[in-house]
Amino acid sequence: MELNAVHREIPPRIDGYGDTSGKLFEGAFARHPSGYRSGARMRSFTPNSGSKLSGSIKDAIKASGLKSGMTISFHHHLRNGDYVVNQVIKSCAELGIGDLTIFPTALFEVHKGIIPYIKSGVVSRIMGSVNGAIGRLVSEGGLGSPVVLRSHGGRPRAVISGDVHIDVAFIAAPTADRAGNISGQMGSAACGSIGYAFTDAEYADVVVAITDNLQSYPISPVSISGIFVDLVAVTDFIGDPAGIVSGTTRVTRDPLRLLIAKYASRLIEASPYFMDGISFQTGAGGIPLAVTSFMREAMKRRDIRASFGLGGITGYFVDLMKEGLVQKLMDVQSFDLEAARSIASNPDHIEISADWYANPWNCGAAVNMLDVVILGATEVDVDFNANVNTEADGALLHGIGGHQDTAAGAKLTIIAQPLTRGRIPCVVDRVHTVTTPGDVVDAIVTEFGVTINPKRIDLLDACVDFAASREIPLIPMDELAAKAKSMCGAMEPIRTTDRVVAIVEWRDGTVIDIVRQLEKQVS
Amino acid sequence: MELNAVHREIPPRIDGYGDTSGKLFEGAFARHPSGYRSGARMRSFTPNSGSKLSGSIKDAIKASGLKSGMTISFHHHLRNGDYVVNQVIKSCAELGIGDLTIFPTALFEVHKGIIPYIKSGVVSRIMGSVNGAIGRLVSEGGLGSPVVLRSHGGRPRAVISGDVHIDVAFIAAPTADRAGNISGQMGSAACGSIGYAFTDAEYADVVVAITDNLQSYPISPVSISGIFVDLVAVTDFIGDPAGIVSGTTRVTRDPLRLLIAKYASRLIEASPYFMDGISFQTGAGGIPLAVTSFMREAMKRRDIRASFGLGGITGYFVDLMKEGLVQKLMDVQSFDLEAARSIASNPDHIEISADWYANPWNCGAAVNMLDVVILGATEVDVDFNANVNTEADGALLHGIGGHQDTAAGAKLTIIAQPLTRGRIPCVVDRVHTVTTPGDVVDAIVTEFGVTINPKRIDLLDACVDFAASREIPLIPMDELAAKAKSMCGAMEPIRTTDRVVAIVEWRDGTVIDIVRQLEKQVS
Repeated sequence: MELNAVHREIPPRIDGYGDTSGKLFEGAFARHPSGYRSGARMRSFTPNSGSKLSGSIKDAIKASGLKSGMTISFHHHLRNGDYVVNQVIKSCAELGIGDLTIFPTALFEVHKGIIPYIKSGVVSRIMGSVNGAIGRLVSEGGLGSPVVLRSHGGRPRAVISGDVHIDVAFIAAPTADRAGNISGQMGSAACGSIGYAFTDAEYADVVVAITDNLQSYPISPVSISGIFVDLVAVTDFIGDPAGIVSGTTRVTRDPLRLLIAKYASRLIEASPYFMDGISFQTGAGGIPLAVTSFMREAMKRRDIRASFGLGGITGYFVDLMKEGLVQKLMDVQSFDLEAARSIASNPDHIEISADWYANPWNCGAAVNMLDVVILGATEVDVDFNANVNTEADGALLHGIGGHQDTAAGAKLTIIAQPLTRGRIPCVVDRVHTVTTPGDVVDAIVTEFGVTINPKRIDLLDACVDFAASREIPLIPMDELAAKAKSMCGAMEPIRTTDRVVAIVEWRDGTVIDIVRQLEKQVS
Repeated sequence: MELNAVHREIPPRIDGYGDTSGKLFEGAFARHPSGYRSGARMRSFTPNSGSKLSGSIKDAIKASGLKSGMTISFHHHLRNGDYVVNQVIKSCAELGIGDLTIFPTALFEVHKGIIPYIKSGVVSRIMGSVNGAIGRLVSEGGLGSPVVLRSHGGRPRAVISGDVHIDVAFIAAPTADRAGNISGQMGSAACGSIGYAFTDAEYADVVVAITDNLQSYPISPVSISGIFVDLVAVTDFIGDPAGIVSGTTRVTRDPLRLLIAKYASRLIEASPYFMDGISFQTGAGGIPLAVTSFMREAMKRRDIRASFGLGGITGYFVDLMKEGLVQKLMDVQSFDLEAARSIASNPDHIEISADWYANPWNCGAAVNMLDVVILGATEVDVDFNANVNTEADGALLHGIGGHQDTAAGAKLTIIAQPLTRGRIPCVVDRVHTVTTPGDVVDAIVTEFGVTINPKRIDLLDACVDFAASREIPLIPMDELAAKAKSMCGAMEPIRTTDRVVAIVEWRDGTVIDIVRQLEKQVS
């Protein structure tokens, strides 16, 4: 066992993953690439190449040349309304194709439909976030190979660097034409941005668009050009609109969470970044949205306009843009109907790829331009390390998302959450899993105030006046941790076997932590 | 010497180009790629990577690491108004950098400014079209290495396949931000589409955007993302608007050319492609625009709407879209102010890259979807081979443009031009240079009528009714060639030395012809 830079013991070799030597996490910005991107397979199409159209997913799979043992990819913009992953896996099973590695950008509860195929060996490996039932299955040892977790930026990095080779990419296409041009902005399964799918289209050996809305050539706008798409499968429904985009996302009304949001907002106001041109990412959670709401008031009060909002975009941000408080939106995933409508109609609402959003190995992802990000975590520790992957019982239930990328990129990374959830502390001595190193986390905001990473002396200084007036109660990490301990008592240690069920990669491809199999629950 | 498929003698080895064995033209669709695209150099940028901005082109060149002997690329959307090429070459000279290979998408008259630097060895090789004074210089042996001519689709193919490796790409950016996001749609040097620059940005080792209009991050829309751009050089002027976009292009008023346009239009009407959803490319020449004008009338008369117009786009096409006669425009180069304005405001006016436009080695370029293209040529021969590169005196004065690509892609390729220009015949027994093989040329239209390639029996059949009514006078190739001969008399043969001054590549990278140095003119 070797220790990486966040003091995690990493086995020198992990079955189903490989050697970890030379791949241990060394620091948030320690690893740099050399050499060249892994190029996509060259093709040639002529006017006589024939039609790309298939009448069914199964026919497209046959035409793709997919074989047992290969790697297939999916994107998750259809979220919990996605019909594509389950249909593709089922079709593979029916075609006798097995031992597949699936490489989704994320899986949702709806994808528990593939559990029987995990059990039967159709799917033998998962590289991507596993939530809900699949996460539970993995945590308890139900998958032969460990899951590999990557951030939204780490995933395209893995593809361009050749760490992951996609044999066949299946791209859910809310609208497509016969040449394979794809847009997420029209059709009954419209989801807005399809930013996560860009890299898959550009690098996979074979690219299959799956659509329920085939339109005349050429569609416009085009998000992914047909020059990357080999096959177009036409099917009845690619998704359930109700599961794809939620109604307008709402700010929390819980007084505790509003208090946390208020503290976080004050911290931003006190920071040197609160000036004309500030940029921020807040995602779709209740607390972050409330922070946005408080910031909206503060921006109006102090006559400040933000330059851009980034990441997964909600209707709340769309409203800020309409009000003139935010000038641009950079959207890798449109969370709700408002956002999906906006990206289809407003040129200042820019669709960005995951590469553009967060890849550390290009000429500068959008996260590098970010001033402030508000994040959550299942727990943080006294070193400010954050865990977003495992729950208090040690079960692997969440993906990394853009957590690592935005924390590394933003000038001010805030984790805002209640100190306890039920009897579970959110601040601990040592997180069960390190997703994001404390080095890139600047502040923890709880209902007890603001806890600033001691390395950010500048931030502490900036908060002095606010702290004096109690608008920002400052609480040092040791006090916060002690408070959590006194409220929750000692926690039962999580009992695991030695078997590694998941590898958490830092966005640069190094191993920041591993997740071990849970001991069989006696229930 | 070996003969290629269009009966051209190609030396087995050409100094400054290399071996031609295995690279002889074998047919329009004969060569297919294997293996993988040549990947771009990987980079990593962090929030602490520092600024991409340079205060001058010279500083950016220094920062780029450009060295003598390297290959640098340019795009030509600023056309005859471009200040960038000349400034970069001059700066290289001042920095003591020489022996450069330049890889422009095209050069214009304005670029004769680099001739002193060709003579002094700063520029030692050109891969790209050479016009006017530079073409004359090359034809007379003034460049040490042969020029390599590629089509708009052949150029990105050469890059993705690794035939050409770009060390530093210099991208004229009418608008950019500090992260290197680029758009051609705003700024005083606005040129509309910057489609030719995409591949350079995606594949060069180092990418330098040169802008005179630095705007706040993030600009919108973005044509080329800053994730591909290493450096942003800010300069006073990147171009002269008067030379970048012309005023609205005009249909010819010359009765002879109008007659030719009328015949071409009738041929299209007679073809099986003249129905709802027809697509076409006509470029900016006087005859093609007149064809468009006649087609406009015909479409109205027969209640037909075109699906898209392709290629270099003019205001004339914008009007057709406004009238509802064309649904979409796919624009790799906006020829005039109207087109530049339209692409900036109409989502149905789609910016496409040269890769998307014409590359034969992707999953299907837009040219493959084309029904009809109207082209010109300096001469065609009795085998329907077309020459667009050399003039009657053998001088290399024109690039290939999209000629090869659209001829290969379109269902109906028409070359429309007067039979003679002055005393020079445009139909000959054997063209001096084969740019595009007769295999993909379907009809020659002159003032004497329509000459259909005998392999297109279907087209001949389709024209029978029109021919009977004399709306389409049909004239066989041998008669047409005889007519040209009787009008112009015997031409002096072009006298050349053995030295090869240019290689004409077919779009698939094979050698379709070579151009030899002219014998010294006695003048």
